[in-house]
Amino acid sequence: MADTSAKRLLDSDKTGEPAPDVKRGKTDNENGREDGNESVQENVLSGFKTSSVLSDSAREKNIFIHGKVADQDAVVILEKTPIREDSLAELFSGSTLKLEMKNDIYSTYRLQAPPHLNEIKTTLVCPATEKHIKKYQRKESFLVEETEADYKNITLPHIVKQSFSVQWVYNILEKKAEAERIVYEDPDPDVGFVLLPDFKWDQKQVDDLYLIAIAHQRDIKSLRDLTSEHVPLLQNIFQKGKEAILQRYNLPASKLRVYLHYQPSYYHLHVHFTKLGYDAPGCGVERAHLIADVIQNLQSDPQYYKTRTLYFPLRADDGLLSKFKEAGRL
Amino acid sequence: MADTSAKRLLDSDKTGEPAPDVKRGKTDNENGREDGNESVQENVLSGFKTSSVLSDSAREKNIFIHGKVADQDAVVILEKTPIREDSLAELFSGSTLKLEMKNDIYSTYRLQAPPHLNEIKTTLVCPATEKHIKKYQRKESFLVEETEADYKNITLPHIVKQSFSVQWVYNILEKKAEAERIVYEDPDPDVGFVLLPDFKWDQKQVDDLYLIAIAHQRDIKSLRDLTSEHVPLLQNIFQKGKEAILQRYNLPASKLRVYLHYQPSYYHLHVHFTKLGYDAPGCGVERAHLIADVIQNLQSDPQYYKTRTLYFPLRADDGLLSKFKEAGRL
Repeated sequence: MADTSAKRLLDSDKTGEPAPDVKRGKTDNENGREDGNESVQENVLSGFKTSSVLSDSAREKNIFIHGKVADQDAVVILEKTPIREDSLAELFSGSTLKLEMKNDIYSTYRLQAPPHLNEIKTTLVCPATEKHIKKYQRKESFLVEETEADYKNITLPHIVKQSFSVQWVYNILEKKAEAERIVYEDPDPDVGFVLLPDFKWDQKQVDDLYLIAIAHQRDIKSLRDLTSEHVPLLQNIFQKGKEAILQRYNLPASKLRVYLHYQPSYYHLHVHFTKLGYDAPGCGVERAHLIADVIQNLQSDPQYYKTRTLYFPLRADDGLLSKFKEAGRL
Repeated sequence: MADTSAKRLLDSDKTGEPAPDVKRGKTDNENGREDGNESVQENVLSGFKTSSVLSDSAREKNIFIHGKVADQDAVVILEKTPIREDSLAELFSGSTLKLEMKNDIYSTYRLQAPPHLNEIKTTLVCPATEKHIKKYQRKESFLVEETEADYKNITLPHIVKQSFSVQWVYNILEKKAEAERIVYEDPDPDVGFVLLPDFKWDQKQVDDLYLIAIAHQRDIKSLRDLTSEHVPLLQNIFQKGKEAILQRYNLPASKLRVYLHYQPSYYHLHVHFTKLGYDAPGCGVERAHLIADVIQNLQSDPQYYKTRTLYFPLRADDGLLSKFKEAGRL
């Protein structure tokens, strides 16, 4: 189960780019809990010993580090937070500016901000297994072509053999975990789902809105399992998900990109809701499938996703890629 | 024609994301000057009055702001700095951690770092002209749903009325321009094409490889015009394009993302070849269509793209968006 939970964190890794896969926390309503733990937790990383940088992104301002916490293997993920409009006034008045360059109408500075206005999201995985460490390592991706036969002969046996646990998904569906994070739920066993923020989103601004709808139905592994009988489920998730996001975040459907991944990170049907214009990891055409297209395709061909050749990227260290190579399919 | 060339250069603008146009300053060698100016410059932004946020990126952690400095129009650009490996030890030992969430082996924190280890690059343009302000403004995008009827009633009349010139495309096909940039050509009038680097690619490294294949056939405006009769053309572009890229750049097909845009930037059939793993502008699922999928869809339904509802983003300033709004379709 630990390994599979890791898969959840690694949702976008198959794109070949280390994602800003930082678990994001709650905000105001958790202050009590937070404060209670603060003194205990303050020093957790003070003795962190870095072994190696697994990957980093200068563009996204994040870094994935392997190291030790009190002799245990750990992975630490740091990512700077987006700049918030509502903190600008305090940022300008409360910071120190160091001039770097002045030329005509242009000048550049290094701004040193009050720490509480310039936090760094930090995720600690401890103890981390070899698999965690490998997963966060920067890895090349390859585009794989999967025919109907390839799915039956290569991909499906691999999924079954790995028997990835989705216990953490069931915990959410059964309210055993993260119940307070749920944004919307339709409890219907056939077409129902739970909508909650993705860990990649800190919920402080809608610019990078990212929610996940998890179906209550437990027997749909991925896009490949979908037939026309699932159209009502998909339509329900699409429609009610959009409505819930409009109500909660005041973001209309015309500002949303709603899609499934293939391959998914975990084999329980889920749908991604991200803000249009936010370059969300994994929203590229090589991995994402718009739910509106999926619905249309199933309506005109009930077996569309069972029979089609599908294309997707796999990282160099993905076990499934080795299986495709062994089968001479790459 | 000027307008159309402009459209070509603006190929990616429909994604609605501003580029990280941040001027960068110098560092160490400027310390003397910096110290000299420090006291004077410290307060430049303390009285900054924000008029509006022109654009920002939650992914890249930057923000472009229009406002006033001492009654003068100004643009301020803030961008958080990448996390540096050489400051990690000090960052871990010198920061405060606030626990947000703990679940099994995962925990998340807000890290408050010493200001000098967590600077924000700041660029001031002052006085700024109207042109500066416009340049940094985000053009918002909206997702449009285009049915078969919408295409006939809204989009096609708009394309025809605008009569966008593609003379520059004909110049390439006829070797009147850019002949020396051609990477490969198949001169066949039916299935032939010209392959050349996109303007966005400087050709200095294959990491961000970006080529365009332009069909010799002149009567195909876009994806909407494609039927099964065009499958040989698409297959030829796909196959020979991949071969040419392997030969010239030593990049195999498994490292390529090959797709069409809808809406395209110009209404003459062309195909994008970009490197897998390079986050090319316009490769998102909301605008890109894998050529391999297009071929399959046309093979099973010759009228697939004539009849399907298609989804695409349009920028707020796109004339076509106004037409959809006037028709009550947004």
